[in-house]
Amino acid sequence: VRVSRVKIFNDPVYGFISVPRGLILDLIDHPYFQRLRRIGQTSLTHYVYPGALHTRFHHALGAFHLTTAAIEVLRSKGVEITESEAQAVQIAVLLHDIGHGPFSHTLEQQIVSVHHEEMSLAFMQVLNKQFGGQLDEAIAVFENKHPKHFLSQLVSGQLDLDRMDYLNRDSFYTGVSEGVIGYDRIIKMLDERDGELVVEEKGIYSLEKFLIARRLMYWQVYLHKTVIVAEQMLIRVFRRARWITEHQNGLDSLQLSTGLRYFFEQSDTNIHSDNIPTLTKHFALLDDIDVLSSLKNWATHADPILSYLSRSILERKLLKIELQSAPIDPARAEQICTQTAQQWQLTTKEISNYFVFTGSEKQQAYNVKKGEIKILLKNETVVPMSESTDDALHSKIITKHYLCYPKSFRNFAM
Amino acid sequence: VRVSRVKIFNDPVYGFISVPRGLILDLIDHPYFQRLRRIGQTSLTHYVYPGALHTRFHHALGAFHLTTAAIEVLRSKGVEITESEAQAVQIAVLLHDIGHGPFSHTLEQQIVSVHHEEMSLAFMQVLNKQFGGQLDEAIAVFENKHPKHFLSQLVSGQLDLDRMDYLNRDSFYTGVSEGVIGYDRIIKMLDERDGELVVEEKGIYSLEKFLIARRLMYWQVYLHKTVIVAEQMLIRVFRRARWITEHQNGLDSLQLSTGLRYFFEQSDTNIHSDNIPTLTKHFALLDDIDVLSSLKNWATHADPILSYLSRSILERKLLKIELQSAPIDPARAEQICTQTAQQWQLTTKEISNYFVFTGSEKQQAYNVKKGEIKILLKNETVVPMSESTDDALHSKIITKHYLCYPKSFRNFAM
Amino acid sequence: VRVSRVKIFNDPVYGFISVPRGLILDLIDHPYFQRLRRIGQTSLTHYVYPGALHTRFHHALGAFHLTTAAIEVLRSKGVEITESEAQAVQIAVLLHDIGHGPFSHTLEQQIVSVHHEEMSLAFMQVLNKQFGGQLDEAIAVFENKHPKHFLSQLVSGQLDLDRMDYLNRDSFYTGVSEGVIGYDRIIKMLDERDGELVVEEKGIYSLEKFLIARRLMYWQVYLHKTVIVAEQMLIRVFRRARWITEHQNGLDSLQLSTGLRYFFEQSDTNIHSDNIPTLTKHFALLDDIDVLSSLKNWATHADPILSYLSRSILERKLLKIELQSAPIDPARAEQICTQTAQQWQLTTKEISNYFVFTGSEKQQAYNVKKGEIKILLKNETVVPMSESTDDALHSKIITKHYLCYPKSFRNFAM
Amino acid sequence: VRVSRVKIFNDPVYGFISVPRGLILDLIDHPYFQRLRRIGQTSLTHYVYPGALHTRFHHALGAFHLTTAAIEVLRSKGVEITESEAQAVQIAVLLHDIGHGPFSHTLEQQIVSVHHEEMSLAFMQVLNKQFGGQLDEAIAVFENKHPKHFLSQLVSGQLDLDRMDYLNRDSFYTGVSEGVIGYDRIIKMLDERDGELVVEEKGIYSLEKFLIARRLMYWQVYLHKTVIVAEQMLIRVFRRARWITEHQNGLDSLQLSTGLRYFFEQSDTNIHSDNIPTLTKHFALLDDIDVLSSLKNWATHADPILSYLSRSILERKLLKIELQSAPIDPARAEQICTQTAQQWQLTTKEISNYFVFTGSEKQQAYNVKKGEIKILLKNETVVPMSESTDDALHSKIITKHYLCYPKSFRNFAM
Repeated sequence: VRVSRVKIFNDPVYGFISVPRGLILDLIDHPYFQRLRRIGQTSLTHYVYPGALHTRFHHALGAFHLTTAAIEVLRSKGVEITESEAQAVQIAVLLHDIGHGPFSHTLEQQIVSVHHEEMSLAFMQVLNKQFGGQLDEAIAVFENKHPKHFLSQLVSGQLDLDRMDYLNRDSFYTGVSEGVIGYDRIIKMLDERDGELVVEEKGIYSLEKFLIARRLMYWQVYLHKTVIVAEQMLIRVFRRARWITEHQNGLDSLQLSTGLRYFFEQSDTNIHSDNIPTLTKHFALLDDIDVLSSLKNWATHADPILSYLSRSILERKLLKIELQSAPIDPARAEQICTQTAQQWQLTTKEISNYFVFTGSEKQQAYNVKKGEIKILLKNETVVPMSESTDDALHSKIITKHYLCYPKSFRNFAM
Repeated sequence: VRVSRVKIFNDPVYGFISVPRGLILDLIDHPYFQRLRRIGQTSLTHYVYPGALHTRFHHALGAFHLTTAAIEVLRSKGVEITESEAQAVQIAVLLHDIGHGPFSHTLEQQIVSVHHEEMSLAFMQVLNKQFGGQLDEAIAVFENKHPKHFLSQLVSGQLDLDRMDYLNRDSFYTGVSEGVIGYDRIIKMLDERDGELVVEEKGIYSLEKFLIARRLMYWQVYLHKTVIVAEQMLIRVFRRARWITEHQNGLDSLQLSTGLRYFFEQSDTNIHSDNIPTLTKHFALLDDIDVLSSLKNWATHADPILSYLSRSILERKLLKIELQSAPIDPARAEQICTQTAQQWQLTTKEISNYFVFTGSEKQQAYNVKKGEIKILLKNETVVPMSESTDDALHSKIITKHYLCYPKSFRNFAM
Repeated sequence: VRVSRVKIFNDPVYGFISVPRGLILDLIDHPYFQRLRRIGQTSLTHYVYPGALHTRFHHALGAFHLTTAAIEVLRSKGVEITESEAQAVQIAVLLHDIGHGPFSHTLEQQIVSVHHEEMSLAFMQVLNKQFGGQLDEAIAVFENKHPKHFLSQLVSGQLDLDRMDYLNRDSFYTGVSEGVIGYDRIIKMLDERDGELVVEEKGIYSLEKFLIARRLMYWQVYLHKTVIVAEQMLIRVFRRARWITEHQNGLDSLQLSTGLRYFFEQSDTNIHSDNIPTLTKHFALLDDIDVLSSLKNWATHADPILSYLSRSILERKLLKIELQSAPIDPARAEQICTQTAQQWQLTTKEISNYFVFTGSEKQQAYNVKKGEIKILLKNETVVPMSESTDDALHSKIITKHYLCYPKSFRNFAM
Repeated sequence: VRVSRVKIFNDPVYGFISVPRGLILDLIDHPYFQRLRRIGQTSLTHYVYPGALHTRFHHALGAFHLTTAAIEVLRSKGVEITESEAQAVQIAVLLHDIGHGPFSHTLEQQIVSVHHEEMSLAFMQVLNKQFGGQLDEAIAVFENKHPKHFLSQLVSGQLDLDRMDYLNRDSFYTGVSEGVIGYDRIIKMLDERDGELVVEEKGIYSLEKFLIARRLMYWQVYLHKTVIVAEQMLIRVFRRARWITEHQNGLDSLQLSTGLRYFFEQSDTNIHSDNIPTLTKHFALLDDIDVLSSLKNWATHADPILSYLSRSILERKLLKIELQSAPIDPARAEQICTQTAQQWQLTTKEISNYFVFTGSEKQQAYNVKKGEIKILLKNETVVPMSESTDDALHSKIITKHYLCYPKSFRNFAM
């Protein structure tokens, strides 16, 4: 019996994703990677776009798929990429998000103090040990230490396949057509010059569309005001839970899952040279389920702030939010805070910590400082994108400010 | 400030779903309905089709949307449907699945003894009380007691909007094009004669396609062999959990969530005239999170059978499954059972209960006994569909048999 | 300046189609192939589905694209296909329809007596001479004389890439979702055993869907009753034009284009060993424009039958058509014929030749006699598809009969 | 027998388009409207995007469909639109392009001296007479004389349904995802204040996307350099044909169709108060077929310039084109001109008239002078869009310059 050399994953976005049997499929089958099935790609975005329930698992496969396509395009143009280099890029992309924890970015600083990319690296190192050093080159690519710089640019850069997949995928699952990008065209236009990734001149409109789509997706989806308030409430649930363990009965009062309990117990959750095995082992136990089951437990907790916030998130009864370009007038925020404190019989500190608060979000579609997208003109000159596009807006930093507070008609007591 | 009369939900399948403010939006905002955000539409199907993470919440909204479209089509053809009747059908469709529990069909008999439609009715009755009797007519439609029979047929029948949405939606999220149906064409072809729903003759090919799509979706998605084995393993996790509470330390040994604990404690979980308020209140606490957090807890449980099965599901290390048209040879099953028992040092009873088992699934795309789809010929005659189609296959019952057992290379101890 | 090795064609169906520079692109650039830009894929189907204006040019590129994908899949499974063999199949597919004339099948017998496949072969032979024998192997594949039989099966068989593209493309441009097929899945499942094309067992549902889609597309699109009547009228326009040249003033009375004039002049338009160069040269002058400009000229022709039919087609004022499973009652047809003859003051022969006529269309989705689709079971056995599917309908021949006649409210004089 | 109140047209873009029987369907059935089936929406764009063969007929239906949706949205928000007003807008949109001639914009000035909107108005006036004055209100809307200004804005404005359909449709048929717009969202956000069309604030991102999509479609599709050169060559074919009739044997030497002959004969083709019936009658005879059959005839014409250009277009052997932001250096153009004249043995005047020429195209996505898009803020204030968007680029006028000349490797003699 001949065995097929690839395993096929179904994907409504790209149709089929072919994964070669061997190291790459083994990594996908690993419990650390399977854990990504339980980590949503877009946190609480589905409270506005109910279809956005796709996971980091699916996104990682998608980015892998686009990377495979990009390698094929580059090779067809005469760029040398060895089998081993190809696999290294594929693995680096596949595992780039493996260090994400529950609710991804939202809770990133609430559970550990480590940025998810650092955590991804830690996981890759652990896996590298388990797989006998086969991930060495992938790690070099991920750490941007590979001699062929363009390989790392495929994984992380202004135009990496990670971004291309998430724009695509988030656009597909939210149904927001503003995020549709011509990913296949951009990939077809990729090339390499002097070790750097470049885009053929005739792909310039697709690139522009890509940057615009990214900007619009930020405002319409990722930083949608309802998403902001839901995620800010979730952050405050965890702050309150921490506060309770510190000021009340300790960890036992919280019904924490094994995974969460470990991280609530640690005073230092930074990565050190010697704690990687322990840290990753425990981190691997965490996923969205720990957070959601905590919310369900805490919805009836004796602490009224914790239970109110938990229940509100579960029932999608969110605080009111105002989003605007101008900074929030502090006097107005303070006045609402004082009123609410009186009405709800809580201290103004409690109110400002948990129920009436301000903040801001900023976004920049194209950050020139992080390295420019390079355009390959027909005459073989390579120029930075900022010189060839008409649109100066992409690199502008846009900031929006928000104020959240309870809707008057809802009582705290519920 | 004018307030829009509708709230718009985003849906990648239909674009936008407009929901009228008032009773219908209030029902959607109710915690009982919001709970459906945490109940997957297709259980563990996402283990084969990773995109299939959509929920009962989204499906209910989708079926509501199609119902609204169908009402509009019928009215445009002169069929009288009053405002109150329209709202009744919309509500009946919206709430038709509100009685589903965690993992929908898979665990239906493991947690309560009640069919989900009965439970949906119970929820509607409770909500009707809360909303001051405004659901009376919707309940009549749901129970098929409304004088205008075609209203009930829109909610539940061979061609109801529930089916149309789930085929559509499951096809979209799995990426299985075999399930794509011409739902908009079928809806455009709906009409009414003598109180019965009929389909105009020129919609016959779309109808045929609908039945075929349903059949193919069954075999390719709902009864995909990997889905069957994953779901059978999940059922056995719960059987083992029950067994442990009955044969070991009782409920305390299982770290059950509040919701699950209640149902594990009951000896009788049938619906009676007097337990509806209690039963629904507790059932409303249950969703997929209770099951998933249990699996995570139980993956390290002292009972090796419980922990093995729980861990295997979480890590997607599934039993091997063979699926075939012929019944499974009992001798073969028994032989594998004996071998595994020896190898794993468990009793053959334990093995046959949890690790080596057979079963069957049957499917019939079009069940004539449940009432035929009626075709309206151009000459105004109404004939049953079985007389106007060439394809006899639709009403054939197809049965497939399966045998599950451990892959030899995996040890029980892990 | 590096020149890209491929030229990219845009295609809304597949995204992009990459064509290697060299022989294949040269063939596409040839005026004989560019002519296909002016030959609609689906004749007058756009009178029912206004979007169906795609051409043989686009279809040929699409079939080429799928063929390239199939070759890649087969190679990835270890099937040996040399570079030269790959190019031969690609060319054979690309040129398989190059012998189509204006309005493809509709007018096939009205202008020449040659089946379009014969004509395609003639064109290939002429091109082979121009390209110095580089098409030898492609012609062997096209003529089913290549030792590797599966190569020919890719071009022409029960499951060839021609069919796969036209179902896909016609479905896309008509908007008829009934024709959507899982072409990418079927292609992924292709393999080869003993020189024959086979499909892996797990592709069986996609295959079934493919046969069903084909059947439904026939009845819903290709043999839609309005399409039938429009095309029958077009055939009769040409019959009348011939009649006029034979019974009236000869060729000069018809304002024929250079291309049409040549074929109206010939008494014998069969292919002979010696007339291929002349025949193809003149045939290459013909496309849909010749027919459409004739209709426009003839709409004001002195012959009332010719002008009536021409104008009716241009203005889409079609005869009435009845389509049914039972044969048409000849008495009824005759009665309508007599009545119309009286009303319009034409002979019954004229009426029955041009205005009141019957006919039939038959269709069979899966013709076992033409060679079965082979299924590769998991145990490496190869069985014919008819043994592994549940559906006997595919191979049933379905016949429908039609009767066309003028709508009473329209006068012949107009 | 009940007759359905609507006729359904199939459309791959929107699914189905329902057209009410009565006046509107009668207009669609009129030969003047059916003529639009033979006028391509995007001229020679299909030489770059082979799928772009859709017609003015389909576009007009699509714009009608979106208009119907917009009317429904406005009414649902309490905007009063009477039945008669609704029909007037629908008809105005349906007929807005009925005055387009062969190859739409490309040949607009080559055949008549009338802008297509004037010609559309002339056709509406003729139809109004035929339909007994039933188009009076539609004409008022089309001429922007209706008291409810927003009705005219739906037909023609910065955000009209015409634009929305053509962006959508052209994007669909070309396969250029850069043009995908959230038309359904924009339509859902429409409202009216003080007689003016406004867009709700939360639609601002969709609007921005709309303007960007329009800009990108211009550069990527409508003003694609290959499209520019093909269309410029077509213009020159007609210039040469005119020249021949004026300098050689008059009209008889050109084998002109009846329709074209009439317009070649006229010295004045402007619209006057008294020539509307005659002008429209003859103009109604013209469509793409007249141009294409001319090209086919002229490809073998004795005049070498006419035949060379005609054949080149038919065989898609186009001149070389350079497109750039800076104006073309006249010295360079002149040099190429002189060289080509020598090589081809033609005068430099002939060369610069037909084979070596420069030109420019400009484009502005959002023209503030033509009236701003109005945004309705949540506080009920109405502000012009330029004040609420971050992107100043939309209103910038971008100009590109081109130079066309023969590829050196092709000889004039061919």
